[in-house]
This record gives sequence, structure tokens and C-alpha cells, in this order.
Amino acid sequence: MIITINSQASSQDRAQLMSLLNRLADSMLPAVCTSMGSREVLVIENKAIDPEAQQILLQHPAVEKLTPVKTPYQLVSRTFQQETSSITIGNSRSSTPVTVGGTTSVPVIMAGPCSVENREQILRIAREVKEAGGQVLRGGAFKPRTSPYQFQGLGVEGLRLLAEAREETGLPVITEVMDIAMLDTVAEYTDVLQIGARNMQNYALLQAVGRHSKKLPVLLKRGLSATIEEWLLAAEYIVASGNPNVMLCERGIRSYDTQTRNVLDLTCVPLLQELTHLPVIIDPSHATGKRELVPAMSRASIAAGAHGLIIETHYDPAKAISDARQTISTEQLRQISREARELAHILRGDAVLDVA
Amino acid sequence: MIITINSQASSQDRAQLMSLLNRLADSMLPAVCTSMGSREVLVIENKAIDPEAQQILLQHPAVEKLTPVKTPYQLVSRTFQQETSSITIGNSRSSTPVTVGGTTSVPVIMAGPCSVENREQILRIAREVKEAGGQVLRGGAFKPRTSPYQFQGLGVEGLRLLAEAREETGLPVITEVMDIAMLDTVAEYTDVLQIGARNMQNYALLQAVGRHSKKLPVLLKRGLSATIEEWLLAAEYIVASGNPNVMLCERGIRSYDTQTRNVLDLTCVPLLQELTHLPVIIDPSHATGKRELVPAMSRASIAAGAHGLIIETHYDPAKAISDARQTISTEQLRQISREARELAHILRGDAVLDVA
Amino acid sequence: MIITINSQASSQDRAQLMSLLNRLADSMLPAVCTSMGSREVLVIENKAIDPEAQQILLQHPAVEKLTPVKTPYQLVSRTFQQETSSITIGNSRSSTPVTVGGTTSVPVIMAGPCSVENREQILRIAREVKEAGGQVLRGGAFKPRTSPYQFQGLGVEGLRLLAEAREETGLPVITEVMDIAMLDTVAEYTDVLQIGARNMQNYALLQAVGRHSKKLPVLLKRGLSATIEEWLLAAEYIVASGNPNVMLCERGIRSYDTQTRNVLDLTCVPLLQELTHLPVIIDPSHATGKRELVPAMSRASIAAGAHGLIIETHYDPAKAISDARQTISTEQLRQISREARELAHILRGDAVLDVA
Amino acid sequence: MIITINSQASSQDRAQLMSLLNRLADSMLPAVCTSMGSREVLVIENKAIDPEAQQILLQHPAVEKLTPVKTPYQLVSRTFQQETSSITIGNSRSSTPVTVGGTTSVPVIMAGPCSVENREQILRIAREVKEAGGQVLRGGAFKPRTSPYQFQGLGVEGLRLLAEAREETGLPVITEVMDIAMLDTVAEYTDVLQIGARNMQNYALLQAVGRHSKKLPVLLKRGLSATIEEWLLAAEYIVASGNPNVMLCERGIRSYDTQTRNVLDLTCVPLLQELTHLPVIIDPSHATGKRELVPAMSRASIAAGAHGLIIETHYDPAKAISDARQTISTEQLRQISREARELAHILRGDAVLDVA
Repeated sequence: MIITINSQASSQDRAQLMSLLNRLADSMLPAVCTSMGSREVLVIENKAIDPEAQQILLQHPAVEKLTPVKTPYQLVSRTFQQETSSITIGNSRSSTPVTVGGTTSVPVIMAGPCSVENREQILRIAREVKEAGGQVLRGGAFKPRTSPYQFQGLGVEGLRLLAEAREETGLPVITEVMDIAMLDTVAEYTDVLQIGARNMQNYALLQAVGRHSKKLPVLLKRGLSATIEEWLLAAEYIVASGNPNVMLCERGIRSYDTQTRNVLDLTCVPLLQELTHLPVIIDPSHATGKRELVPAMSRASIAAGAHGLIIETHYDPAKAISDARQTISTEQLRQISREARELAHILRGDAVLDVA
Repeated sequence: MIITINSQASSQDRAQLMSLLNRLADSMLPAVCTSMGSREVLVIENKAIDPEAQQILLQHPAVEKLTPVKTPYQLVSRTFQQETSSITIGNSRSSTPVTVGGTTSVPVIMAGPCSVENREQILRIAREVKEAGGQVLRGGAFKPRTSPYQFQGLGVEGLRLLAEAREETGLPVITEVMDIAMLDTVAEYTDVLQIGARNMQNYALLQAVGRHSKKLPVLLKRGLSATIEEWLLAAEYIVASGNPNVMLCERGIRSYDTQTRNVLDLTCVPLLQELTHLPVIIDPSHATGKRELVPAMSRASIAAGAHGLIIETHYDPAKAISDARQTISTEQLRQISREARELAHILRGDAVLDVA
Repeated sequence: MIITINSQASSQDRAQLMSLLNRLADSMLPAVCTSMGSREVLVIENKAIDPEAQQILLQHPAVEKLTPVKTPYQLVSRTFQQETSSITIGNSRSSTPVTVGGTTSVPVIMAGPCSVENREQILRIAREVKEAGGQVLRGGAFKPRTSPYQFQGLGVEGLRLLAEAREETGLPVITEVMDIAMLDTVAEYTDVLQIGARNMQNYALLQAVGRHSKKLPVLLKRGLSATIEEWLLAAEYIVASGNPNVMLCERGIRSYDTQTRNVLDLTCVPLLQELTHLPVIIDPSHATGKRELVPAMSRASIAAGAHGLIIETHYDPAKAISDARQTISTEQLRQISREARELAHILRGDAVLDVA
Repeated sequence: MIITINSQASSQDRAQLMSLLNRLADSMLPAVCTSMGSREVLVIENKAIDPEAQQILLQHPAVEKLTPVKTPYQLVSRTFQQETSSITIGNSRSSTPVTVGGTTSVPVIMAGPCSVENREQILRIAREVKEAGGQVLRGGAFKPRTSPYQFQGLGVEGLRLLAEAREETGLPVITEVMDIAMLDTVAEYTDVLQIGARNMQNYALLQAVGRHSKKLPVLLKRGLSATIEEWLLAAEYIVASGNPNVMLCERGIRSYDTQTRNVLDLTCVPLLQELTHLPVIIDPSHATGKRELVPAMSRASIAAGAHGLIIETHYDPAKAISDARQTISTEQLRQISREARELAHILRGDAVLDVA
């Protein structure tokens, strides 16, 4: 149940509403108060308020609207918000803003290396990504590695290099934040905060990212074996903590076949479009683990309705120090970007097809 | 290792070759002799023949060519045959032949009800499927049902009704064969033999279908948790038994999330195109289990490069006595068929795009 | 809903009951008539008969009892039969009969090679298995192999050798039947029919085995990714076709980790004991795929309550031509048998423990 | 490769060794220096040092020993340490110390509620757990909940109540730490730090727990779909950060069947005993999700060789505010504790069996 607060409500009205709620509902009510766009909302579990209590609430001056939501996730559900969220990346920096979701029919292309390796590498890749049609530069500075003995990223130095690449190319930047302690630092440099698959249910991190004052867009990767509901509830943690700018990123789920790194669950795209207003981005690199499968799955992602792609790209994929096997060349990126835009045009009806 | 037999080889030459092989190779040599198109071939495990023995074999008059294949599947591998197989459905009957795979850029659309229910139902669906752009009529006569107390199909009566629908519409027919005892009967009526997911490793059935004199095209569904390699080896059983006309059908693999019936592993399309020359068909109905997800996943399948779709379709989906939840209307089929053809045109370069 | 037929009912009574049922229930009623022990039963889907109709049925002279069963599987459910089934192996042959399930607290140990390889091998293994405490000899004559180019078993010659080993040792024999065409032949030689994991949903085979006149005990292996319910429904197919002597065999389910061949789902033991009266056997060889893990998992299986074990055993495991990696020595079998019996004694309260 | 540092080495020797290593090995060498018991060790990736370099290293005065380890995890491997780690819980507090692993044959029983709910509840459960044979009290104060609208635990108040229950009963306490920010606080109250399944790859948390000055024992739960190798590498993160007192806890992995909450992968017990020296604890409550399955799986766990159990227990399971369905009564706990100790005695040879 979502209670939209009347914007004219006085602070006294609000206090009264809270005590009314405490009387009407369960004693252990875990209500969450947050803001969605220009409105404040209160969220409580559906079962907590019976129909009679709803009538009483509706008459309270602090209440503008009640939205009953049947799913455990509430703020991220389509029931609460009909229109697909429109998220702007790179708003307030030396970069060209990019819009994801909303009414745009142009899929966003995020591309770049698995890891920022050195200045020359990231600057060259940034230039080539831009030239190939990419709109956002990805690059890992803090890397979550399965083994403590693997390269863990350049850290803050990596963040600085990403910012330098943005200065030079105008591409906004996305990079992963693994740890609350580094959140302020990462947020100082990046345009999008990425939360990795391993941290999808790191609730402390989700809440810290939700509360962070910058409200930067967040790319929330799906956990290795997360259900759609668990994923949406992880997004709900961020939104309920105050940051509605969440994008979901499918990067493959764990399976039994070793031919691909993961199984790309592309059906999540139309399914999520029914269930949530958050935009959906596909990561065909981690999903497949093989660069030769990336072009076909990029096309398929756009055809399924995805709002964008995030693709590991390098001018010389074989030389990437991590994830080389799944990294494409900037040359391939050019082709994928072009196809993605063409497909989106056709499928969203902005183009006519002249069949030979 | 595949040994292509010289077409001029006498029967004495062949006998000599067999005894030469027995001398050169392992005593327990499980060699398989079959024909591929106009050529006879012998297939043996790769390790069975060392390089020196290969040299001796090459000089034998019955040997035209040796093709070493590194994968456990051999006849179905791209290494053995570079070009995608072209399979003709409905060749010798009162139907319009349809080509799948090969050099055609037109995806095949197979559609129809889960079960043949009665004469009126199947005739009406057949007419509507044809009118909506479908080229092959699907319909279950023998149904593999999880419970013995569920409707098991109309049996032979269902086959007869399918044949009648073919007579009337010219659409060739695909239906499942579950059992060797019924193979002759099913083959008498159908144009394509479907082998269901539950029977993917029913080797006796695979071999019987491979040996059957009609060499009807076979649609081999992927087992519920089959690896790509197990699936290709199941196809190899059919081809090695004498029938090269095999299409692979992905219908979703088992997963942990109950939001969809299965997980559609669409990445198998570009992966299979690397590994095998057999065409690949997608079944978005069983893969998703929800009709509202079928259109998006049909588009995605074609964008990934699939050679066709098989879709559960009914004039009144809610009334289907089995699989109603995943059955689309013939109206939706029309839209899907059109989109599939358009997408295939664009992606295969036969159309130019005029972006508005 | 299970209708137990009155044993005094005349054939006229029965005919009347059937027409009564047809009137009372759905027109497409898929009722199954079979015998359970000394009683005939009719099984229909639960929803087919409403409470009022039940009252009418109860008054019919051919009806002895109505048993409503809430699960889709009915005859195999604990609701229908409270006591664990007692199954006798090797009843009518030159072998020592062995009882599985029922009230016995002694777990059955089935052991032997993956494949029957030759006379010397199987006779020696049979003697050693018996001497090590094994009660049933396993051995594959027809082998379901993933590749058509792998050794497919000795066939009928293998069956003959198994029978010879039984003659010599008195151990009853279990072997797999893959194919209806070979059912009579296999049944002529074996004491237990094994249905492999790949054929768990080969309904034609399940029904043929159920109908076979000998009513030999059946060991039904769980499919690679079968749910508990699908597995019980597969057993229901056999029982509903006339053979109640079914044992369930867990052999590991497919998973994502390659450290073991499969994941042994041992929790199925207490779960099945709630749901069904059929005995449960564990196959730690296929479940783990590594011989060093077999002893611990054998102990765990008995501790979980399993009625027996089936273990791949060879006098020289490294020389087994199939499944060598998971085959234990007859020496290890001796230890496992002893431990299994001791554990079963303690856990079922037949022994007192004198803690040092 | 693990380099054990000579305990007599001067700081100059050590510095020289580091610069020698930098010369001998890869430039981007990610070496980790930590202490294992009384010895300092350096760990580097195996491939980083070639055999010739190893000879040079061996002659350096700061080097006591080189241990090549073939697996990606090194410090936790059996290759590095032959004997099972012995971990003492509750060493320095108002509690009775408990030893896990090492040479003890007595399995540890950890029990208590899912969540600490209030003073009366936790004190009563603690008393009953102790009386039933439990040795460690579990209880959640900070709860990782899938939904932000679910009860998130009593927080610090819960920690205080756990400490009070320890005061009263002498039972050491285990509770979960979800967040680095709360680590000092949780460590102030608890005897064992639990890391939950969702945080198994939260590397920042693993490292913080490893570095924490108290070196409290850590119970590391297996991630929902973690491979054995990923799990051991997560443990390696903790040990390489300075805390060798790690216990592994299997709590079920994700699967496709909804009959149980997860699939208990009990085979991990003998497998881990081959691969690692860390003790293994089983959580049959989360693994099965159903209280009626807990006793059988507790027996099976001990029979498989587990070093202990952690079980959700309540005096009135139905009233637990979280995980009620899988919580057993203290009465059942008494039975499980007794059986677990008896089984361990028998299997480890400390008891003789007098079969009636």
C-alpha cells in the first residue's frame, strides 16, 4: 500500500497521519517514507491496513492518494507508476546527457573495457567507443574478483582516469561501487553507480546508494541466481531509500551448461515491462562469455524491447587483462550500435521498411 | 573421424576397407555406416585411428575423404558440413512445400493448437493459421502428459483430422511421435516428426526415426536440462541412423524462477550456428508459458538468427483444453508472422531501411 | 479420487458403475482401472466428481471405498496406502529372495559393474559382491550412451551372462530396459527392471513395463531435472498400468557445479517418505561421479532413511570400460555394506549403543 | 604458491625478499602477506613464479618453506595444511568454550530462533537449547530480508539480549554481521560472526571481517548458487586478510523444485574434507525449509562427516515471527542432539555397537 502525501500537508498533518497509521495498523508496522519525484510517499505492507482503515486514511488531510499494490515490491511496480521511468545520465557534468527509458526509442549503448588498465588504454577506448556510436563509457576501477590473488582494479586512480576520459570525449561514465566506504569517492567521479551481481542483496550497500545525496542513476545487475521478484525487491530497497533512478541489468543467470558463461534470460525484458516501470539494460558480454555471440544477442536484446546494452569493448580484445574472451572490438561495436538503432526504429514504428 | 566412401567403390572394396579398419583400430570399434545425401560415410571415434593409420586409409580405393572432427558429435558438426542444411517440409503430399534453413532468408512459421481437439477446431485453426501467414500446421494427436489422468490426445483420430486440415489448406503438418510402435502410423499422416523434450534421450526412438524409410524431416526438441552437446549427440543418433533431415528446437530449459514456465536459452541460436549445420527453430510458447511474452520473444528469436518459430495458436486461446495460458490468438500470429519476415529481411540484408 | 471395487461385485455391477461414472462426471473422463494387490481400483481426477456425486457412488454395490487424494499422483501416495510397500526381489528364480521396504530394517545393497564386459568379469564381480555383503547384482547389458559412438553394451549376451552369474551366486539381478521392443527379452533374464533417468518420462515404456505380465519389480530412476512430483507421476504411470512393485531411485540431479557429476538430493528421502509408500534407493555412484565420495554418501543415505543403495563396483575399478571414475572396489563395498547395516540397526532402534 | 617466512628473518631480510620477488615475478604481482597461526606467509598466484625462480627464493634467508598449491584457493587448501582446523568458540567470555573441528569427534550443535524477538523469548529459548544439548546459541539481530517492508531485526537491542542469554546460560553466541559499519558493534557482543549467503561474495565485508582485531571465529554460509571453488575463494579472502578461524556452512543451493526451500548439497561434506582443512557445518533448516525434514537431514549430515549443525529452534515454532515453517521445537532438538552425538561416536570409532 502506497500513501501519497498531500504536498500542502503541514508538518502537524503529517505527524497526525503517522499516529493515525500506528493506531490503524499492526504494531510492528515497518513503514518507509521516501520521495518519488516531487511527491512524498509512505509505503507499508499491503496486509497491514484493512479496507475500513483505508476509508479513514483517505479522509485524512495529509493523504492525497492510496495505491494498493499486490506485489511485494511496490514503488518499482507498474501498478504504482504507469509510464516507464526516464533516467538522465550525465546531467551535471562535462558530458552529453543521455536519456534512458521514458518515451525515447533510441537504445542506450554503454561500452568500454572490463578494467581501466592505464591512461592510454582508457582514453583510446573512450575515443573509439564514442566514434563507434557508444554514449556511455564503462570501465572497472574497483573489481570484484572471485580470487583475492587476481587483479583488483586500479582503484581511485582508475576513477580519475575515467573522469579524464569523460573530459576528453564528453561521454558520461559508469563504474562499479562495491563498498559503502568508497561510495562518496566513487560518486564524486562517476555518472552512474553500478551495483554488481554479487552485491545485489547487499542490503546495506543498496540502502546507502539509495540515501546518497547525489541521487546518481544506478545500474542494478541481477544476482547470479536471483528470481525476478528478488531482483525487483533489491531495486525497491534503493528506491525506498530515496533514489528512484534505477536501471535493471540482466547479465545472465547461472546454469548447468559450460558452453556459455551464463544463460541470458532475455524473456525478463517483456516480463519486467509488465511488472515494473524501471528501464532494462542487457549485458551480453557477461551473459554469454564469448565475444562471437555478442552481436546476435545484442540484436535479440533490442528486438525483445531492451532499453539499452552494456558491452565490454577494447581496441584489442585479446590484450584485455580481464574478461578478454568476452570482449569485442570497437569495430564490432560500431556495427552493433548501428543495428541496435535501426532495429529500435523499426520495432517502435518510427521507420518504414522498404522491402526489396 | 568421418570416412567418406568413394561412390565408385565396389562391394569388395568396402569389405576390404572394413577389415582394414578392424586391423588399424581398436578391437571394440563402434563404427557407424550411414548415408549423407548422395554419399555413404563411416563414422568412428576420433581417438580410434592414429595419424599413421589415417595415411594408410587415405590410400585405400574405397576411401574418398577423411574428415577429422574434434567434437563428440560428428555428422551434425559444421566441421563436416559447412553449409546450413536445407530441409524441405511437405515434399510429396497435398501440401505446399516449405524450405527451412539453407540459403533462404524467410523464417518458417509453424503454428496451431497444443492438442487436436475435434474436427471443427483443427479445420478452423488451420484456415486461420494459413491466412495469418503460418506455413506449417502443428497439433498434438499423441500427447505426453505428466499425469496419466490428464487428456492424452485423440490418437489416430487426431492424425486423421490433421491430414484433413492439410487437404483443405495445403499446409504441411507437424505432430509428435512418442513411441516406436506408433511410428509407422504417425509417419503415414504427418510431414514432420516431432520428438518431444521428454524423449530427447530416448535412443531407441531416435534410432527408429533415423532408420524409418520415409526420411521425414524431424524436429528434435531440447531436453528439459540438456546441454548443447547432449542435444547435438541426440541429433547425431538420428543422422547416424540414416536421416539427415533434422531441425533443432529450443523450447526453454528448466530453471529456478516460477515467473516463466522455463528459461528460453536464446543464446543457443548463434552458438548452434557455430557448431552445427542443422537449422534451429524456437518455441516461445513452451519456453515462456505466458502468451503475453510470445510476441517479444518471437522477435528476439528471429533477431538472434533462428530459422523459424513454432507457436501454440488457437482462435480462442482461453478455450484450449491444454496449454491455454501460453496459447496466442490467430490475430496475434498474423502480427508475429509479419514482424518475423520483416526482421529477417533487414537482418539478412535483403531490405533497405528508410529511417523517418 | 480412488474407487476401490467391491471384490464381490458382478461384471454387471461393474458395467453399471462405469456408466454411472460417465453420467456423474465430466464427459472426457480419463479413468484408469487397475489392480492393487488383491483389489481392483478405479482412479479418476479429483475434480471430476463433486461431493454429491460421491454420495451416490458410495451407495453403489460395486463400490467398496472412496479415497480422495489431493495430489496429482494417487495410487503411489501415502494417503492411499499408509504402510511402506514391501517388494520382493528374485522371488521365482534360482536366487535368494530379497525384501525391500515394508517393515524390514535391513537396507538392500545392489552392486556390480556399470557394464557387463565379459563372462570372467561379471562372474568374478558377482562372487565378490556376494562375499562383500551385496544382495542384488547390477550390470548393464543395454547401455543408454550419450554418444552413438560409445560402447552400447553387450546386449542379449550381457543378459545371458547376468543370468549365469545369478545361477552361480544366487544373487538376483537388476538391469536396464531401454526399449519396449526388448522388454520381453530383458524380463526373461532379469529380476528387477531398471528404468534409466533419460527414460523417466518415456510414457510408452512406463506403461509397457506396468502392463508386462511378469510384474517384475521396477527401479525407476529420477530424471536429470525431474521434480519430486514429476517423478511420482512417472511411478504412477507404471502402477496405474498394473504393476505396483515400484522402487524409486535418486541418482543426483543436474546442477551448475562441475566438482561432482550431479547433486545428490538426499532430502528427497524423508520427503518421499511423507508423500509415498514406495521404497527409496540411493545411487551414490552416479550422484557424485567420484568413487572417493561414495562411502560418506552411502552412510548419509542410510542415515536419511533410504531403503537401500545401488553402487557401481568392480574388482579393479580403474579398468572398468565405463564409469570407471565413480566405481568402487569390492573391498570398499564390504565396508559400506557393514556400515549401512549397522547404521540401519541403530537408527531403527534394533541395537543398543555402548558408548566407550 | 605460499612462502612461509622464516620467523628469525629480520625486517631487512623481509624487505629484500619483497624486492627479490618483484624482480623474479610478474610486474603486477598481487601478493598477499598474512599470518597463519604463529607463522607469517606470503601468497602469490602459482603461475607467477617459475621453477628457476623458486630455487632462488628457497635460498633466501627470509624464506622457510615454499608450498606450491595447484588450486586457486591456497591458504584454505589441504595441500597447505594437512590437519583439520580446530576452532574454539567462546574463548574469552562468560561462556563455556566449544571446539569445532580438529581431532574432536563431538559435533557442535548451534541452535536458537531465526530472529531475537524479545527478552523473554531469547532467554527461554537459550535455557531450553542448553538443556536439550545445544552448545552455541544462534539468533538474528540484524536480518537480511528480501523485502524492505519485512521485519529487519531488533538490531543492537537484539545483540544485548543475546549477550544476556549468554550470561545466564554460558552458551556462546553466533549472530550475523551484514555490514562493515556494524562490525565493531556486532563483534563486541558475539562469539561467532556469521556471514550470510547473500554476502558470500561481498568482498569488502569478507576483508573487514578478516582484518578485525578480535579474530572471532567466522561462519561463512555458502551463496545461493555458489560453486565449491567460489565458496573456498570467499573463505580465502577472510583467511588472507588475517583471520584463519573460518567454518564453512552449507545451507542449501538454489534449485528448480519448490517442494523444498533449497537443495541440501550434502556431498559437499566429503568433498570439502578432501579440498580444505576448514570445518564444515550444516544448516538443515534453511536447506530444507520444512521442519519435518530437519531430523533426517541432521542425521544424514553427521553420517556424511559434518563437524556440526546449526538449527532454527523455538519453544513454540509456529509462533516464530520469521522462518516458522522450518523451525523445530526444543523437544525435537534434544532428540537430534542425542542422535548426532551417538552417530558421531559410532562413525568415528569411539563406540562399539552391540547389535541385538
